[in-house]
Amino acid sequence: MTVFRLVIEYDGTDFSGWQKQPGRRTVQGVLEDALAVILRSPVRLQGAGRTDAGVHALGQTASFQTEADISPFRLRKGLCALARPDVAVVEAAEAPMGFNARFDAVGKHYRYAILNRPSPSPLSGRMRFFVPQPLDIDAMCRAAALLVGAHDFAGFRAADCERETTVRTLSAVEVRRFDTDIFIEVKGDAFLKNMVRIIAGSLVDVGLHRLSLQSIRDALTRGERTAAGRTAPAAGLTLVSVFYPDGWIRQR
Amino acid sequence: MTVFRLVIEYDGTDFSGWQKQPGRRTVQGVLEDALAVILRSPVRLQGAGRTDAGVHALGQTASFQTEADISPFRLRKGLCALARPDVAVVEAAEAPMGFNARFDAVGKHYRYAILNRPSPSPLSGRMRFFVPQPLDIDAMCRAAALLVGAHDFAGFRAADCERETTVRTLSAVEVRRFDTDIFIEVKGDAFLKNMVRIIAGSLVDVGLHRLSLQSIRDALTRGERTAAGRTAPAAGLTLVSVFYPDGWIRQR
Repeated sequence: MTVFRLVIEYDGTDFSGWQKQPGRRTVQGVLEDALAVILRSPVRLQGAGRTDAGVHALGQTASFQTEADISPFRLRKGLCALARPDVAVVEAAEAPMGFNARFDAVGKHYRYAILNRPSPSPLSGRMRFFVPQPLDIDAMCRAAALLVGAHDFAGFRAADCERETTVRTLSAVEVRRFDTDIFIEVKGDAFLKNMVRIIAGSLVDVGLHRLSLQSIRDALTRGERTAAGRTAPAAGLTLVSVFYPDGWIRQR
Repeated sequence: MTVFRLVIEYDGTDFSGWQKQPGRRTVQGVLEDALAVILRSPVRLQGAGRTDAGVHALGQTASFQTEADISPFRLRKGLCALARPDVAVVEAAEAPMGFNARFDAVGKHYRYAILNRPSPSPLSGRMRFFVPQPLDIDAMCRAAALLVGAHDFAGFRAADCERETTVRTLSAVEVRRFDTDIFIEVKGDAFLKNMVRIIAGSLVDVGLHRLSLQSIRDALTRGERTAAGRTAPAAGLTLVSVFYPDGWIRQR
């Protein structure tokens, strides 16, 4: 029995998200189908986290166990060949016995990307939230700073989110402008459903002066979804990487 | 009569290039169709240069004359709405009478982008030449330096290129690596057919140690196409900007 760890990049545009669902094209589904062909037996692929329909990944991480005898090199090449063009396996490695990409993850890094100029972009539009109005970056940075640390993020989750505990710790929420691109980098221990998209939408609403810093504070302290901003579109969101304790990835 | 200057971004993937051709989807064709709707009369759009099928642009420039009374703002908005999603007009401005985007251009900046890692990229692959083998960047930089200046580029053009003069001046040929991305920035007064793609392909062949620096020198001095490298794929090439004398764009 071997445990493998995969690092996966995908363009989420044409997927109904990560998680396998009957009758839908999903990233997990495409990869499990490819694995079944390569390993000649079905396996269950455990992703570090579910991404919504339309959300991208540069470094989604997943694990599986198999009795098949295959090298990480052949596994990566085979998966890239079968899952192309909108999914690629960027790394494949043997992991210590017992490694589970979901339960062993200690944090994640998401990036939310905004295109802030008068015209849309044919070349980067698939990965951007297009905001043609000027954005007040200083106000966005001040609002972002309020979110760092341990908070109850009940006000920043989808209505159908079923998690019982809503306290999460964000180690970074950084807003940076590069010419007409704005990137919001969010790092934290764990995330509620739509949490990063609601954070991004709230920061954009602050940048447009439609939402005050006090509203952000209220959303954090009272847990009211209506105090926070809109849910920003899925296309702007990318799961950049998943963090694990050093020991789990020493073989990399 | 008003002369307009347009700066145009496009994803070349699904176009048969810039230039209008019967029965083909081209960028010029899409924009002329949109202009005919907006201006209620046909116009001839003059592009600064033709780009091949599959080549992208961040800053293609074009001009046209019209008797219609329309503001640059409405023109830009209307063209973006009609030409989306793979073409956008990033700037529209009135130009001095007599301005012609092709004949007044004094130079162009092209970028050739390479993805250099073992796996392809679903997120950036549409705009990259995928080279999985390691590339010797130092050798590529040395070869690039040989191309800067005024040279006879007869060895770096397509077999069907019909230009009579083949001396061109390149002010910059720079190779830069950012993690797994390599960008070749090429600036020059004018370009022969496929010239940047043959330069990029030659530099990649040098980076793979398949082609020597002496071959690059031979291609320059003897004008032999066979001494240079392969023609790199169109998908990696982007027309970044077109240069004009200051006077023509003072109204920007």
